[in-house]
Amino acid sequence: MIEGVHVRADEDPADIAWKLVAVNLSDLAAKGAMPVGVLLTHSLGPGDERFVEGLQEVLSNYDVPLLGGDTVRGTGARAWSCTAIGRTDFAAVPARSGARPGDAVYVTGSLGLAMLGMAEAERNSGSAADLAYRRPRPLLAEGRALAPIVNAMMDVSDGLLLDAFRIAQASRVTFDLDSATFPVADPERILACVTWGDDYQLVFTAAPDRQLPVAARRIGTVTGPDSAALRVDREIPDLARLGFEH
Amino acid sequence: MIEGVHVRADEDPADIAWKLVAVNLSDLAAKGAMPVGVLLTHSLGPGDERFVEGLQEVLSNYDVPLLGGDTVRGTGARAWSCTAIGRTDFAAVPARSGARPGDAVYVTGSLGLAMLGMAEAERNSGSAADLAYRRPRPLLAEGRALAPIVNAMMDVSDGLLLDAFRIAQASRVTFDLDSATFPVADPERILACVTWGDDYQLVFTAAPDRQLPVAARRIGTVTGPDSAALRVDREIPDLARLGFEH
Repeated sequence: MIEGVHVRADEDPADIAWKLVAVNLSDLAAKGAMPVGVLLTHSLGPGDERFVEGLQEVLSNYDVPLLGGDTVRGTGARAWSCTAIGRTDFAAVPARSGARPGDAVYVTGSLGLAMLGMAEAERNSGSAADLAYRRPRPLLAEGRALAPIVNAMMDVSDGLLLDAFRIAQASRVTFDLDSATFPVADPERILACVTWGDDYQLVFTAAPDRQLPVAARRIGTVTGPDSAALRVDREIPDLARLGFEH
Repeated sequence: MIEGVHVRADEDPADIAWKLVAVNLSDLAAKGAMPVGVLLTHSLGPGDERFVEGLQEVLSNYDVPLLGGDTVRGTGARAWSCTAIGRTDFAAVPARSGARPGDAVYVTGSLGLAMLGMAEAERNSGSAADLAYRRPRPLLAEGRALAPIVNAMMDVSDGLLLDAFRIAQASRVTFDLDSATFPVADPERILACVTWGDDYQLVFTAAPDRQLPVAARRIGTVTGPDSAALRVDREIPDLARLGFEH
């Protein structure tokens, strides 16, 4: 994460630490993995005490040890890096490439909440949107419950459409999505909600008759493969602009 | 590693990639660990093809897989981060804190070579010093051979004196070092050679009657503890300036 790119220059360092760890745990969640620990690189600078506070909060909240890492002192924009290590106790870890024609496409939770939180005029309001932006929650339990029954899974870090597109492309299939079913935080701005990242919900495919162990909304069907990896029943901008490419 | 801090702004990106991975493998070497793989964060920018070339060279040279990571695009100074994962097949991994009074203190190889390489007028001369600076070699085999017989071990990344000081401090003992025995690349500049980092040799302590499985120079004895963690038979600057603190 880079200051000015992934976090605001005036972000509370405690929130930076939380997000740094949480988004990496979210990647473990998408593989149904249990965290073993994290390692992180921290750019020293103003607010280091707050960074450590946020770090302690997120680590104790998810009962994850800090295994190691490094501190550096640089010039210019600060940067943070985190590696999360996890393990699974089942053989088939969900890949991006496992979606099969006939699968149903699902997504958990609500999309666009982090976007609304970032745009809130009042900082640190403690609203659901504010917390979604500042303190994203990796869906570790949900990922573990889903992993054995899904065919493909990712966390939504770069926007639903872009991440769905990536699964479809890796699986060499087509996703036919029905925008009326998208679970969005702001129905007036569907497209913004599904092209904005930072929600850390789980998008996955499974056989349509599979019972789901967690709440999720069905948003489409896997077909194809044909000429497009992603098909949505409304005008969408160029695929390259589907989400936040970085 | 940060551009302008740990690597020159005009460094060949292939050398940056090599060093990024090699210095992390060197940390595994100091624990006697075999590499399982690396994960890295790369700041995209000019010379990315060269970066990938250097990455392939170092990974194939040490037969280490790239397990994952991330790419980011920022502004200002670029930064790179690497996590190396290793495993050992013995129980007692050498710690910093294991040095015991009566131990002999040893260091492998020659110190200051990377410093001379960085100062060479001709870039990429291919000399031993140039390669020590641009293409440091993690002592994986040496570390594995030494790990079962040492009481404490570190790689020399921040200068012999600073890293020896750290072992002594963590072990709550005193290191009595004899500067006449320091294996330095430039005898005219002993202090520079033992306070400059980037050599990635191994400094360790072991019982003095232990047979060593690799070539190493004895540079002193563990005593104390007394008032000082490090004692050298010559004037040395303030301990805080013993090496490159970053």
